[in-house]
Amino acid sequence: MTPHHAARQTRLWAALDEAGIDVLFLPPQADLEYVTGLERRLPSFGEIGYAHHWVAGALIVPGAAPVFVLPRMIREFDLPAGVDGDVVTVSELDDGAAMFRAALDSAAPRATRIGIGPRAWAQTAIHLLEARPGAQLIDAGALTNRLRRVKDADELDLMRRAARLVDAVLADVEPFVVAGATELDLASEIDLRMRRLGSRGASFDTGVWSMGPSTARDASVRLSNAVLAPGAGVSFDFGAIVDGYCSDFGRTVHIGEPGEEYVRVHELVMAAQEAGRQAARPGATAADVDRATRAVIVDGGYGEWFRHRTGHCIGKDVHELPYISEEDHTVLEPGMSFTIEPSVFWPGRVGVRVEDVFVVTEGDTVSLNEHPRTLVANG
Amino acid sequence: MTPHHAARQTRLWAALDEAGIDVLFLPPQADLEYVTGLERRLPSFGEIGYAHHWVAGALIVPGAAPVFVLPRMIREFDLPAGVDGDVVTVSELDDGAAMFRAALDSAAPRATRIGIGPRAWAQTAIHLLEARPGAQLIDAGALTNRLRRVKDADELDLMRRAARLVDAVLADVEPFVVAGATELDLASEIDLRMRRLGSRGASFDTGVWSMGPSTARDASVRLSNAVLAPGAGVSFDFGAIVDGYCSDFGRTVHIGEPGEEYVRVHELVMAAQEAGRQAARPGATAADVDRATRAVIVDGGYGEWFRHRTGHCIGKDVHELPYISEEDHTVLEPGMSFTIEPSVFWPGRVGVRVEDVFVVTEGDTVSLNEHPRTLVANG
Repeated sequence: MTPHHAARQTRLWAALDEAGIDVLFLPPQADLEYVTGLERRLPSFGEIGYAHHWVAGALIVPGAAPVFVLPRMIREFDLPAGVDGDVVTVSELDDGAAMFRAALDSAAPRATRIGIGPRAWAQTAIHLLEARPGAQLIDAGALTNRLRRVKDADELDLMRRAARLVDAVLADVEPFVVAGATELDLASEIDLRMRRLGSRGASFDTGVWSMGPSTARDASVRLSNAVLAPGAGVSFDFGAIVDGYCSDFGRTVHIGEPGEEYVRVHELVMAAQEAGRQAARPGATAADVDRATRAVIVDGGYGEWFRHRTGHCIGKDVHELPYISEEDHTVLEPGMSFTIEPSVFWPGRVGVRVEDVFVVTEGDTVSLNEHPRTLVANG
Repeated sequence: MTPHHAARQTRLWAALDEAGIDVLFLPPQADLEYVTGLERRLPSFGEIGYAHHWVAGALIVPGAAPVFVLPRMIREFDLPAGVDGDVVTVSELDDGAAMFRAALDSAAPRATRIGIGPRAWAQTAIHLLEARPGAQLIDAGALTNRLRRVKDADELDLMRRAARLVDAVLADVEPFVVAGATELDLASEIDLRMRRLGSRGASFDTGVWSMGPSTARDASVRLSNAVLAPGAGVSFDFGAIVDGYCSDFGRTVHIGEPGEEYVRVHELVMAAQEAGRQAARPGATAADVDRATRAVIVDGGYGEWFRHRTGHCIGKDVHELPYISEEDHTVLEPGMSFTIEPSVFWPGRVGVRVEDVFVVTEGDTVSLNEHPRTLVANG
């Protein structure tokens, strides 16, 4: 266990005590990685499943070392870095429910208020309730989010590396954005180059999509086999993973001489992001940043086509709370890291986006990305 | 809604009635795709999150059309194919808990036994319990698995296409398995070629890893930047997605002239798979297939290094129950599709695997893959 993890566990214990939570179950997701270092596995489109898979995670009781409960297959094949702590290993022929209950009884014999990670499996939640009839199950998501949402200097260093990595990848791939290339080839090139530069994979599914007068396509189709044609903007949306920290990045590159509307919309989207950055100060709310960003695009006459929130916090997960969105009144604090990603997506007419990760400081809010925001038109 | 989906819903209703489940909540995963056609999104290493994200899914009551509850962002951006049915759309400023409760009250006003998909979020499970105090939450995983585990002819056609797709990709990539290539380059080439041939992506994270006297590496590290060297077997583990159905495939390709032990172990692993195929007949159990496969490797003196189950069923998910494993006594039926994937992974000495998807028929169990199982040694 690193000093980071020890300090985080101490903060978690205090938060659990304050919330009156006797024991917390965390599955092998970002929360558990944050407090113990247990590495998440890469994601899978089709579910991966092992015997007794639902037991996987750790029981955390204030003042005590975490107790990991892991199916043998996960321990043996999915955790090449090993596990740092006490582990109950559940093998194929074991009685998983009995071992899980015994681990709970041993770690927290009198617990009646049981916290659980918000995205733990319902199956595990049901087993917890069966193991401790009458206990109350409490969603611990807000509690762990409060621990994670302000990043320390070491975390911001990893976030910066993840941001610079995607800067470098787009700089290399930008010249390939020409008529005749396919969206798929560009996405593949991006995924490969991210991994060559040390990313564990893509932090989310890489999106490359073309919009403009030459294509009626909407932004909901993030990637296709389409061959790129002149007269369209090719939007990028991708991120890297550096030591478990994610980036999330975007630009639009035009193919051919851009028309007057594309130029105007490109300026508008960049101005909107800058307005959001300036609004993002300690004491402002997430909704304030959304409002400032959106106002620029609404005033420019394209409000109807900025169809999503302005951004979201980011760290070990791609989308973390607070969201930079009208419903989120969380007050921003130095060390919070989030995207500002305005867009105009008007199918058949124009598609432009920009996305960078910003960090709130005591002074100006600064971008972790350094890739230029100037209009790029190839060919 | 296709006739397939209508028929599946009718079967699901009967299963719910039989289990005494009043209403079933399914999140946007494979179960819901199977019964309604609502497409899953591609997976993400860092979590994706939207306002009120936990509401996402559908409420299913016997005899009634499914009621979808979806955050606006998911409906607008993650479902390019649209939603076929009644939708409650929860927008950012809405009261998600109130709308979810109202949907539940409307769909199932008197429900006290509430089924839930096993991998629905704990957060959603907690909201269901809050919306209906005193209700019993029931893991519906076994119930939906019984619906899905025998594939019909149309499903097997998609599974066959997914299998032939990876056959074709390995045939194309095999010549590149030479000293000087990197594992990462090979994996990237596989991922790109799968998508070019129509796969929606990788059905799980592609693994390419080298084992042998020239490298002490274990199979738990599935992919690295390592440059391939002679004197090692390069194992492959990857799968495609065709219309939501997954393949899962593996071979080992040797670099350089293989030694006597590699040749012997290669023969043993192929013989083990063939023994498993022959044991897989209607009326045999999953454990019988595991036992028959394992016996060959144990008798050959390498039992200690066959360190995982023999396989798993596969369909919309990569790992479906029953598992071809010692603890699983499910009786095999015609139409069940599963992998037989014996291996010998002895770090620093030898690594060989084979994996194909097989289907139980009234007669012989047949492979959906056609790639040869002969020893391949390059360069």
